[in-house]
Amino acid sequence: MTRIDWQERKNLTMLADFYEVTMANGYFEHGLKDKIAYFDMFFRKIPDGGGFAIMAGVEQLIEYLKNLEFTEEDIEYFRNKKIFSDKFLDYLADFNFECDVWAVKEGTPIFPGEPIVKVKGPVIQAQFIETMILLTVNHQSLIATKSNRIVRAAEGRPVLEFGSRRAQGYDGAILGARAAYIGGCAGTACIIADRDYNIPATGTMAHSWVQLFPTELDAFRAYARTYPDNCILLIDTYDVLKSGVPNAIKVFKEEVVSKGYRPKGVRLDSGDIAYLSKIVRKMLDEAGLKDCKIIASNSLDEYIIRELILQDAKVDSFGVGERLITSKSEPVFGGVYKLVAVEEDGEITPKIKVSANVEKITTPGAKDLYRLYDRDSGKAIADLITVEGEKIDDSKAYELFNPLYTWKRKEVTNFRAEKILEKIFDKGKCIYESPDVISIKEFCKEQIDTLWEEVLRFEHPHKYYVDLSHGLWKIKDDLLNKHSIER
Amino acid sequence: MTRIDWQERKNLTMLADFYEVTMANGYFEHGLKDKIAYFDMFFRKIPDGGGFAIMAGVEQLIEYLKNLEFTEEDIEYFRNKKIFSDKFLDYLADFNFECDVWAVKEGTPIFPGEPIVKVKGPVIQAQFIETMILLTVNHQSLIATKSNRIVRAAEGRPVLEFGSRRAQGYDGAILGARAAYIGGCAGTACIIADRDYNIPATGTMAHSWVQLFPTELDAFRAYARTYPDNCILLIDTYDVLKSGVPNAIKVFKEEVVSKGYRPKGVRLDSGDIAYLSKIVRKMLDEAGLKDCKIIASNSLDEYIIRELILQDAKVDSFGVGERLITSKSEPVFGGVYKLVAVEEDGEITPKIKVSANVEKITTPGAKDLYRLYDRDSGKAIADLITVEGEKIDDSKAYELFNPLYTWKRKEVTNFRAEKILEKIFDKGKCIYESPDVISIKEFCKEQIDTLWEEVLRFEHPHKYYVDLSHGLWKIKDDLLNKHSIER
Repeated sequence: MTRIDWQERKNLTMLADFYEVTMANGYFEHGLKDKIAYFDMFFRKIPDGGGFAIMAGVEQLIEYLKNLEFTEEDIEYFRNKKIFSDKFLDYLADFNFECDVWAVKEGTPIFPGEPIVKVKGPVIQAQFIETMILLTVNHQSLIATKSNRIVRAAEGRPVLEFGSRRAQGYDGAILGARAAYIGGCAGTACIIADRDYNIPATGTMAHSWVQLFPTELDAFRAYARTYPDNCILLIDTYDVLKSGVPNAIKVFKEEVVSKGYRPKGVRLDSGDIAYLSKIVRKMLDEAGLKDCKIIASNSLDEYIIRELILQDAKVDSFGVGERLITSKSEPVFGGVYKLVAVEEDGEITPKIKVSANVEKITTPGAKDLYRLYDRDSGKAIADLITVEGEKIDDSKAYELFNPLYTWKRKEVTNFRAEKILEKIFDKGKCIYESPDVISIKEFCKEQIDTLWEEVLRFEHPHKYYVDLSHGLWKIKDDLLNKHSIER
Repeated sequence: MTRIDWQERKNLTMLADFYEVTMANGYFEHGLKDKIAYFDMFFRKIPDGGGFAIMAGVEQLIEYLKNLEFTEEDIEYFRNKKIFSDKFLDYLADFNFECDVWAVKEGTPIFPGEPIVKVKGPVIQAQFIETMILLTVNHQSLIATKSNRIVRAAEGRPVLEFGSRRAQGYDGAILGARAAYIGGCAGTACIIADRDYNIPATGTMAHSWVQLFPTELDAFRAYARTYPDNCILLIDTYDVLKSGVPNAIKVFKEEVVSKGYRPKGVRLDSGDIAYLSKIVRKMLDEAGLKDCKIIASNSLDEYIIRELILQDAKVDSFGVGERLITSKSEPVFGGVYKLVAVEEDGEITPKIKVSANVEKITTPGAKDLYRLYDRDSGKAIADLITVEGEKIDDSKAYELFNPLYTWKRKEVTNFRAEKILEKIFDKGKCIYESPDVISIKEFCKEQIDTLWEEVLRFEHPHKYYVDLSHGLWKIKDDLLNKHSIER
């Protein structure tokens, strides 16, 4: 493997919130350092009103957890704060990760309220890794989800990720390109994402190439001479219809076709893409260049792409920049990480967080997560969150019910129940090897094919069922009643 | 200096768009590798409809440019693409940065259309660094600008940056915290930003701390015993008014006040902050804890903070997360990098990019950028873009005019003209030392004080003048007429 992973060389242990350390020191002081706690990461809302999100970032999460280590300088940094005990700092200096960690596999469709990462371990440790778990999974899941929306809008036309220059920081660009590929993009413009993650990178010319030469014709000619076998020309530096296309056609004939190659395409980066693309298509066709593709860029996203296709724009592939790499229409994936249980005398005690905001109430308890598939169609019927260790007998009928409106019930039969939380760390040791990114991308596509069309819908999709087993529901209901709050 | 800068150890040379290399190879093939080109970075639109943006990211840009180097593996990567000539790859292997680079200093208010970074050098090199210039300056300027809006909305109350977990990648969190500090935040929750950039990091407890103990009272007591001198309690895990505040008051008295300390504060992270904060304030006051601060968090931004203050919410400081670290309401800073001139036989030939989208037309030519200040008030009157080397005689009156509606004119007198593009690299050598981040923050505050109130307004601010000198306007007008386009 020639891959050079600069992430692996980066120790991100100190990318944590300060309160994780004040709490850790507090737990240590109160003799709670070995207390076993369970934390769940889950999210509350699907971006852009979609019907599902896509899990991503697990590979980077694993790298982070493998490389957890406080350097001497880190310990010095904490010591200088003068609020942490020496014994606690010794503990950090000898930090030895001991948690069990489970995660939903990258590329899996995920839904609000279900645990997508689960951590069990000494509370100091399980708490400390909160920020990086959230940051890593939130970011890449956001971009994978957005990418998939854009790719589905393009209805089979390749979508290329072009956004590095507008990303929110370097990892935003690089890991954003990775996540965009998982979500279905055909490639990226970002070289380092290709070098380090094998995301195919492509690119031809900017307006500056055209401007640098005395004329547009000179510029096209020079480009075609260097790359006759992969010639894509940018046609909007001066005037698309008056000069861009006529010059491109002339150069394609003289420098490409005459040498036995076919022109690859023209790129439109401004103007009314629907209108221009139709005329450009006609001009290319009339010049005998029916196989020459039209590539469009310029502030695209799933909404504009759907509109363009509705208007019958003659675009063969899309370059998507800022609106993908930042998920501009909804730039936050709101995953949270909550304490859900602690071990007390060998027993698991579920814990709840109540709140005046109903949507901030957590589901308590150590859990398992099942996806139920219809055995005939292979389609996903529902996700079922159970008490950890609870068995789902999929040879029998199973009654699902709405956890809020419990009288809404549905009996499912002829289904297969699959556990979708994969154990990735066992007592601090990594036991999972992350697949390569192309496998993840393929897996993602297969998984999305298990969703009903109604869940895939862009506007007002059907709400996929995420239900609690009766046992888990009872635990939650009891705790809610115990902590009843003031209206 | 104990600072450990992990960015400096990161070689981001390959964080570029693929087309920069296809073009570079093309320039090389056509004997244009030493052709001198001028590029400008500028932006077109101020985020959130504000009156100005804030420049940030220059320190990281300098680090990147200092560390430009293609490794053997990078060269191998390119060679495997089988489209680049060996001679060109040898050039990359021996890459020696030779450009002149100018940038507006970090913390300076910046306006649409003016050059904020300017590069002069061999076209291959000046083109290659496009992505990183844009990515670096776009990201940090976005966050510094947003931070400043939020800080101004808080009207003197400290704002803390809490967003790491929702950032778009690791640099999004770390450099986002840096930019937020430049924009005026008082600190961050992000430890690594403190360790590496001296942004003061703070933090106390999460809901998990409260949940871990048998009762909220136990949890508060434990925390207060460990941190009696810096005790901030999170009061919304179960019920703010019924349990959170009464328990906090009890513990403050028993564990803090009794030991000779004063309680630092309580934090509200959910519910109706305006309503709750007033009652919490009353309860604390009645308990003799008038100096105990109330800190609010929960999806805040400048709009909600202004609303809270209008409603007389009793909040002393704000923790702002996802809406700051992603600039959620407008997550893209749209800086672009355009070829504006080339040298031909020792002469500078201005270049223009025309386009069907008027706002995509560039201002051609090698330029200087001046800010004109009123000598009496010290206020900034206008920015003036001139032809490079053009002298502005500020001992005389100067006629400004609107570059689009040229009959709109204004004569300015009694002004001081200051060049605001600072040269940071001379023939590839760094000649500028970036100030520390606290100096940048202070500089930013001073600079914003030079803006008229009308420009600072949140809604429909006055449009600050960014004008062209007559000489530069003439160059643009001539080129536009030469490249007149089809309507």
